[in-house]
Amino acid sequence: MQAAFCYNKTMKEEVLRRIVAESGADALFLEQDHLRRYVTGFYSTDGYVVADKEGCSFFADPRYFEAASAQLEKSFVRVEAGGFEQALARAGKAKTLGVPFPFISRSACGRLEERGFALVDCMPALKEAMKIKTADELEKIARACDIAEEGLLATMPRLKEGMTEREAAAVLEYEMRLRGADGTSFETIVAFGAGSSVPHHETGDTRLAFGDVVLIDFGCKVGGYCSDCTRTFLFGDDGAHEAFKAHYALVLKAHELVKERLVSGMTGREADEIARAFFREKGVEKFFTHSLGHGIGLQIHEYPVLSPRGEEVLSDGMVFSDEPGLYFEGKYGIRIEDSIFLKDGRACSFMKKLPRELIIL
Amino acid sequence: MQAAFCYNKTMKEEVLRRIVAESGADALFLEQDHLRRYVTGFYSTDGYVVADKEGCSFFADPRYFEAASAQLEKSFVRVEAGGFEQALARAGKAKTLGVPFPFISRSACGRLEERGFALVDCMPALKEAMKIKTADELEKIARACDIAEEGLLATMPRLKEGMTEREAAAVLEYEMRLRGADGTSFETIVAFGAGSSVPHHETGDTRLAFGDVVLIDFGCKVGGYCSDCTRTFLFGDDGAHEAFKAHYALVLKAHELVKERLVSGMTGREADEIARAFFREKGVEKFFTHSLGHGIGLQIHEYPVLSPRGEEVLSDGMVFSDEPGLYFEGKYGIRIEDSIFLKDGRACSFMKKLPRELIIL
Repeated sequence: MQAAFCYNKTMKEEVLRRIVAESGADALFLEQDHLRRYVTGFYSTDGYVVADKEGCSFFADPRYFEAASAQLEKSFVRVEAGGFEQALARAGKAKTLGVPFPFISRSACGRLEERGFALVDCMPALKEAMKIKTADELEKIARACDIAEEGLLATMPRLKEGMTEREAAAVLEYEMRLRGADGTSFETIVAFGAGSSVPHHETGDTRLAFGDVVLIDFGCKVGGYCSDCTRTFLFGDDGAHEAFKAHYALVLKAHELVKERLVSGMTGREADEIARAFFREKGVEKFFTHSLGHGIGLQIHEYPVLSPRGEEVLSDGMVFSDEPGLYFEGKYGIRIEDSIFLKDGRACSFMKKLPRELIIL
Repeated sequence: MQAAFCYNKTMKEEVLRRIVAESGADALFLEQDHLRRYVTGFYSTDGYVVADKEGCSFFADPRYFEAASAQLEKSFVRVEAGGFEQALARAGKAKTLGVPFPFISRSACGRLEERGFALVDCMPALKEAMKIKTADELEKIARACDIAEEGLLATMPRLKEGMTEREAAAVLEYEMRLRGADGTSFETIVAFGAGSSVPHHETGDTRLAFGDVVLIDFGCKVGGYCSDCTRTFLFGDDGAHEAFKAHYALVLKAHELVKERLVSGMTGREADEIARAFFREKGVEKFFTHSLGHGIGLQIHEYPVLSPRGEEVLSDGMVFSDEPGLYFEGKYGIRIEDSIFLKDGRACSFMKKLPRELIIL
């Protein structure tokens, strides 16, 4: 991913000010890892962000103070030493605090309300900003996608008959880690044979056999940002895969149709319907048992939602998965997934290296 | 870990009934992954548990219904098809719902309160049960510890000059995964050289050099349960490590003193004080910048807390870390950590294979 994007390079002070204003609170009070990272760009397991009209402070305890100060020296974020009490003191003049209702615990709400603050949900305002990725965010996701692709390409020739799903996942995760991944973006799904028919198959001790369908759904993180990818292939062709191959072609067609027809301005429901209508036309709609896709960012499931109930409008700068699938219980499942984004009104894939055509290893 | 423990094999119906009764609610309503797993033993990314005097139901969506039904067939848990609405209908007669205030979001509370339920915090009752591990839980933690030890033993000979911290983490995670780990229990910390002086060092691209202090803090998961381990060693002895070696001996002594002197009936504060008092006596207390340990279970940081503020009483069946450390900013840090448990009043280590004495690779 090169620097051709016109989005903000990183979080800008004016964007944060707009979020504060839109939240309707006197100050934002954030203690969630991924939201702190979103606002400051700095990762820590603990800490507090307080942002109001006057500016933005990050309260770091002794474990993080030095690193945060160095990293954020030239940013608009003021790093201050302290924890909950210091952060509260900084927010002291505020009457209402903006906190993220979907992520803040009841206990954490209680601690703030006890001190006399009224709470409002800042997540609608944060979400509006978070769902449009900046150039910096797109670069991180692109890197996470590139590492995922390289990781699977390095793993494929290492798959051997008799290997367990868990061993295959171990190799894949190793190959991604070696190339710079900070970790996986979710629990790697490796399914051999009939296990592929379960969309959320739990990677286990099933051994790879000649002629197996192999479904791998995986991703990694770079700088906190996730990639998400699925490929389905055959481990040798035992000649008993005609139905599978026909269904594979349908899934691939649905996947590509989405990339061709999805445009900025559509709703998530309309995007989902591109794949669903195609499957309907082919008489296999009932085997498409999940939704088309989900937003991807600092969390593996973000906004927007691409499903029959997705009413959000898709627009430039959004990142999400295109992952149609067909599942035949007890037999096999097929899913082909790329992480994609919208640019100049069109869908573009982050995935440049992994073939989508059926591979027979 | 053998079957010598006298704790319950798995969650028992009467334990769950007691939790319901102690929570003071008409029914428990749980939608958090780790709490659902604690109550049912079944893992899923979504689902609802409703438990009251009449029994316990797990509501699974189509992705999980079949697997949950098979796995829980002989348990006291009734698997029912459905989601939020079905779970609510099952809880319908209840006026008060017990939900975990530290884990339930404000949004989720809102959804329940809108439907007329009063909410009470069931976490105190759940915590009392969760902090005493059953034999089944201890076995899983023992397995996670064994895999962690084997993983590091396999990694040590693979550490080479010029390798990055990230590459070392990749090898370690691969070795654990290969041996049956479901994943890491937290982000692996690999610190080469001065990075070791930062207790929460972020694994990066620093390359291993002859004479480096190497600190590795890591763990894996088995069946949802975590292990936690830290070892510090030297990558070759360049002869400039006299102070390091003296401090290493102090950390090791503190670590072993805790194992010798910690007994059931002590508070977390008293346990922490075993190490802290020793460091004080040796004039290095100010370099012990964190607490002695934390509970370990389905989450990497659980109950009890072993710190100067830990007022919980430690008792048989509890699992926690023993991890004293000394940190000399910009120079080096030393931490030696085992996951340990209390049995017959005494501290026992899960770690049987990794030496604690200073290793020079």
